[in-house]
Amino acid sequence: MALIRFLERPKLEKPLLIEGLPGIGNVGKLAAEHLIDELSAKRFVEICSGHFPPQVVVESGLLRMVSNSLYYTKAPSVKGNRRGRWKDLIILTGDYQGLTPEGQYELSSEIIDLVKGLGVKRIYTLGGYGTQRLVDHPSVLGAATSPALVKEAAKYSVVFSDEPKGGIIGASGLLLGLGAVHGLEGTCLMGETSGYLADPKSARAVLDVLTRMLNLHIGFSKLEEKAHEMDQITAKMLEMGKRATETIPRAEDLGYIG
Amino acid sequence: MALIRFLERPKLEKPLLIEGLPGIGNVGKLAAEHLIDELSAKRFVEICSGHFPPQVVVESGLLRMVSNSLYYTKAPSVKGNRRGRWKDLIILTGDYQGLTPEGQYELSSEIIDLVKGLGVKRIYTLGGYGTQRLVDHPSVLGAATSPALVKEAAKYSVVFSDEPKGGIIGASGLLLGLGAVHGLEGTCLMGETSGYLADPKSARAVLDVLTRMLNLHIGFSKLEEKAHEMDQITAKMLEMGKRATETIPRAEDLGYIG
Amino acid sequence: MALIRFLERPKLEKPLLIEGLPGIGNVGKLAAEHLIDELSAKRFVEICSGHFPPQVVVESGLLRMVSNSLYYTKAPSVKGNRRGRWKDLIILTGDYQGLTPEGQYELSSEIIDLVKGLGVKRIYTLGGYGTQRLVDHPSVLGAATSPALVKEAAKYSVVFSDEPKGGIIGASGLLLGLGAVHGLEGTCLMGETSGYLADPKSARAVLDVLTRMLNLHIGFSKLEEKAHEMDQITAKMLEMGKRATETIPRAEDLGYIG
Amino acid sequence: MALIRFLERPKLEKPLLIEGLPGIGNVGKLAAEHLIDELSAKRFVEICSGHFPPQVVVESGLLRMVSNSLYYTKAPSVKGNRRGRWKDLIILTGDYQGLTPEGQYELSSEIIDLVKGLGVKRIYTLGGYGTQRLVDHPSVLGAATSPALVKEAAKYSVVFSDEPKGGIIGASGLLLGLGAVHGLEGTCLMGETSGYLADPKSARAVLDVLTRMLNLHIGFSKLEEKAHEMDQITAKMLEMGKRATETIPRAEDLGYIG
Repeated sequence: MALIRFLERPKLEKPLLIEGLPGIGNVGKLAAEHLIDELSAKRFVEICSGHFPPQVVVESGLLRMVSNSLYYTKAPSVKGNRRGRWKDLIILTGDYQGLTPEGQYELSSEIIDLVKGLGVKRIYTLGGYGTQRLVDHPSVLGAATSPALVKEAAKYSVVFSDEPKGGIIGASGLLLGLGAVHGLEGTCLMGETSGYLADPKSARAVLDVLTRMLNLHIGFSKLEEKAHEMDQITAKMLEMGKRATETIPRAEDLGYIG
Repeated sequence: MALIRFLERPKLEKPLLIEGLPGIGNVGKLAAEHLIDELSAKRFVEICSGHFPPQVVVESGLLRMVSNSLYYTKAPSVKGNRRGRWKDLIILTGDYQGLTPEGQYELSSEIIDLVKGLGVKRIYTLGGYGTQRLVDHPSVLGAATSPALVKEAAKYSVVFSDEPKGGIIGASGLLLGLGAVHGLEGTCLMGETSGYLADPKSARAVLDVLTRMLNLHIGFSKLEEKAHEMDQITAKMLEMGKRATETIPRAEDLGYIG
Repeated sequence: MALIRFLERPKLEKPLLIEGLPGIGNVGKLAAEHLIDELSAKRFVEICSGHFPPQVVVESGLLRMVSNSLYYTKAPSVKGNRRGRWKDLIILTGDYQGLTPEGQYELSSEIIDLVKGLGVKRIYTLGGYGTQRLVDHPSVLGAATSPALVKEAAKYSVVFSDEPKGGIIGASGLLLGLGAVHGLEGTCLMGETSGYLADPKSARAVLDVLTRMLNLHIGFSKLEEKAHEMDQITAKMLEMGKRATETIPRAEDLGYIG
Repeated sequence: MALIRFLERPKLEKPLLIEGLPGIGNVGKLAAEHLIDELSAKRFVEICSGHFPPQVVVESGLLRMVSNSLYYTKAPSVKGNRRGRWKDLIILTGDYQGLTPEGQYELSSEIIDLVKGLGVKRIYTLGGYGTQRLVDHPSVLGAATSPALVKEAAKYSVVFSDEPKGGIIGASGLLLGLGAVHGLEGTCLMGETSGYLADPKSARAVLDVLTRMLNLHIGFSKLEEKAHEMDQITAKMLEMGKRATETIPRAEDLGYIG
C-alpha cells in the first residue's frame, strides 16, 4: 500500500533531488531539514506507505500519518550565477525509512518513478558513516554512480574508497542504485559520525561539501548552534563517565578484604 | 486475503463509526463491547483477514474464524434530542488487530473503504494510553484530525498535547490518519491505564467523555462492576507483593554472616 | 507462489476430505498416513508453495520439493454398507504447514478452492491437543461448524467444550473456518497428547473415532506397533530421568558443608 | 520487485547452467567464481530483487546494486572433444541469496523461467555440506532429479544417500526442485565442509567432480593457493587454541586455595 498525494503541482525546471532521511547519527535528515529551512522549501508531495510503522504522529493534539515528503524550491540563488545543469531543487525527507528489506526496495522504487516523472536526472543522497568513536572534524565519504561523478566530488575533498565495507544500507544507497538502473546518476555523501547520538556537526560537514558543489548560498548558524549544544551534552556525558570511573573503588583499596 | 461478509444490509442514515479493538489495557475493546451491550447493537459485517493469527475460536464446541465485526444501532436515544449531525451508530470491535505493520495498514484501509461506502463521515476511536503506573482517576487524552474537533473535545476535559510521544500505534491511529486522507474526520480518545491489566475503569472514563459528547443515554453498572473486580484483584496482588517483600530477610538481619 | 499439479484426474463421487498435517504430537499426520496405507490411497495432487520452507527433501539421492499432497481412494468398504452421504475419500497430508500466518491463510484458502472444485462438501480435520503431561488413555476433543455436527460426534464420546482456550491453530482450524465461509461443513478431532513426542497412541484414538463415525474398515496393528515402540522409548526416558535424580546428592548428604 | 537486465544477448547453443551462490563454507560461490575466472566467462544478465538486502556495494567509490548475475562462455574446450549433449555454459553466482523463504522461492522461480527461456535443459548446483568438524579430504555428496543422473554422478565417486537429513536448503535445492517441476533435470554437488570458514578445499573437491563429469579443462592453482592459505590460518587458530588451553591453570595448580 502506497499513497502518494500532491499538495501542489509546481512547474519544475531541471530539478535536482537531494535526499536526507532518518539514519545513523540522523545526519541525512538533519542536513535535509536544515536545507529546507534555509531555502524556505515548500512541501508539495506526501508519501504514506504500508512499509512505515503503523502509527500516526501527534502534535498539539492534531494527528497525521507518518510519511516521507518532497519539498521544492524554485531556482535558489547560487554564487556567481554558476548553476551548472540544474535549476530547481527537490528535497526528500520524512519520519521513517521502510521497515523491511522489501519495503525499502518498494519505497525507493516508487520514489524513483515519482522524481523521474518530475524531470529529475541527478540525485544527491546524504547520510552518516558510523565510526564507533567520537569524531571532532568529520570527513565526508562518497560513493557515486559513475567515475565522472567520483572525479567531480573528489575536488571537494570527498573521500572515495571501498568503504563502507558493508555497503550503503537503506534509501541513500538504493535511490542511487535503482536510479542508475533507470538512467539517473548521483552521488552519496556520508559524514563521519560516532553513531551514538544525533550529529549536527556531521550534517554540517556534509552540507558544506554539497553547497560548495552546487554553489548554494545558505547560512549555517542554526546547525552550528545545534552542534554546539550536542558538544556540550557529549562533554557532560564524558565528564560523568570519568567521575563514575574514579569513584569505583579499585580492588587494592578494599582493605576489609584479606 | 480479506473476506468481508455482510450478515445483513441495514439502511443506515448519517452513521458515526466508533472503534474499540484489543490494545493496551484492552480499554478500547472493553468500551466498545459495553456500548454494544447497552445499545443492543446488532452484528452485521464480519471481517476475516490473512493478517490475523491463523486460528479459529472454539465456543461450546462450535468453531468460528477470528474476525473483526461491525455492529449497528438505529437512532439510539439521545438526551434532549440533541443528536447533532449523526443519526445511526456503527461500532467496530473484534478478536485481534493485524499482526504486522503491513497487515495493520491493509486492514485499516479496507475498513475505511467499507465504512465510507456505508456513509460514515466521522470516526471516534477508543483506546488506552499506557502510563506504567497505577492510576486511580484516569484522565482522557485526545488527538483529532482537525483543530475544530480538538476544540470540541476539549470542552469535555479531554487533554490535547504532544502525547503520546511515540505516536498512536495501531488501528485507533491509522483509521483516523487514513480516514483523513479519504476525507473523513475524527477524534481518538485514550484513557490513562497502567497497561499491566485489563482496565474497565479506564474504559469507563473514555465512555464517559464519548457519551457526553454524543448525548448518549447508557448505563455503566456492568462496567463499574468489572472495574470493582479489577480493583480487588489489584489490591490482592499489591498485598501479596508487600508480604513477599517483608519476608525477604534484609542484609542486617543475617547474623550468621560475619 | 503456489504450484498445484494434478498427477492424475480421478472421477470422484461425493468425496469427503480428511486432513492430517504435521502439528502437535504429529497426531494428524500419523493418522492421515495410517489411513493412506490401510486404504492404499493414491497420490493425485501435489501442492508446492512459497509459504513452505525453501528446501528440497533428499531420499536415496533423489530430491523432491517439500509439498502437501492429496490422496484418494474410491468407495472404501464400509461396515454393513452404511456409507451415509459420502462415497469416495480424499486425504490431505504433507511435509509442512505454511510458515507464516499469511501463508497459513493462503494455503488453506487455496486448498478449500481446490477441494470444493472436486465436489467436497464435508471435511474432517485431525490433530493433537497438547496437555503438557503424559496421557495413558487419550480422549478426543472436538470442534465443529454446526450444532448438528457437534451432536453427531458427541455420540462417539468426542468431548465438546470451550477448549482449546487458545483456539485451534493452523490448518485443522482454518480449513474448517474458511470452509464454513465457503459453504462447507466439518468437524475437527483432536487427540490428547503430551506434545513432547510423536504420539501414535493419540493418532489411534482419533482414528478410532473417525472410523466408527464413517463405518470404515481398517486395521490398526501398524499404528499400535508404533505406539508400543513410543511407550518403550518413553519408559526408558522416564527411567533415565529417575536414576539421574537418585544419583544427584541431596543437600543433607553433603557432609563437608557445615 | 525483480529487475532482470540483459547486458548482452549472446546466442547460446545447448547451454548447461552451473549455479554457485553464497552458502555454507561459501563452497558454491568459490567454485563458481573459480570457473568464471578459468573460463573467462562473461557477465550478461544482472538480477536485482527486493528479496536481497536493501543496500548497494561500494568498490573504489563506485556503487552498484547487490545482485545475482549470469555469466556465459561459448563452447569451452573439453578433453577429447567429449562434450556430451551440451555446448555452451551459463554460470550463476552473486552477492546474496533471497533473505526470506518467500524470497527464495520467488528468485528461484524467476531464474528457472529465465534460463529455460535461454534453452537450458540441465542444471548443476554447487554447495557445501556442513559436518561441524574439520575435514582434510572432503568427499562430495550428491542429490539429483532422476535415477539416471544419480547413476551418472555415482561413477565419479559422488556419494548418494538420505543426507542431508534436513534437506537441501536454499537455491541449490530449489533450482533443481522447481526446475524438475518445469521439465529441467539436474544434480546438486555438495562438498563436505566444517562450515566454520570459507572452504576453497571443498570447492576444489566439488569442481574436481564437475570438471571430470563435463570433461572440462581448467587449472586449479588459484583455488589450491587459497586452500593453502586457509590451511595455514586454520593451523594458526588451532595452535592458538592449544596454547590458550595450556596456559589456563588447572584446579590442582592453584596452591593458594586450600
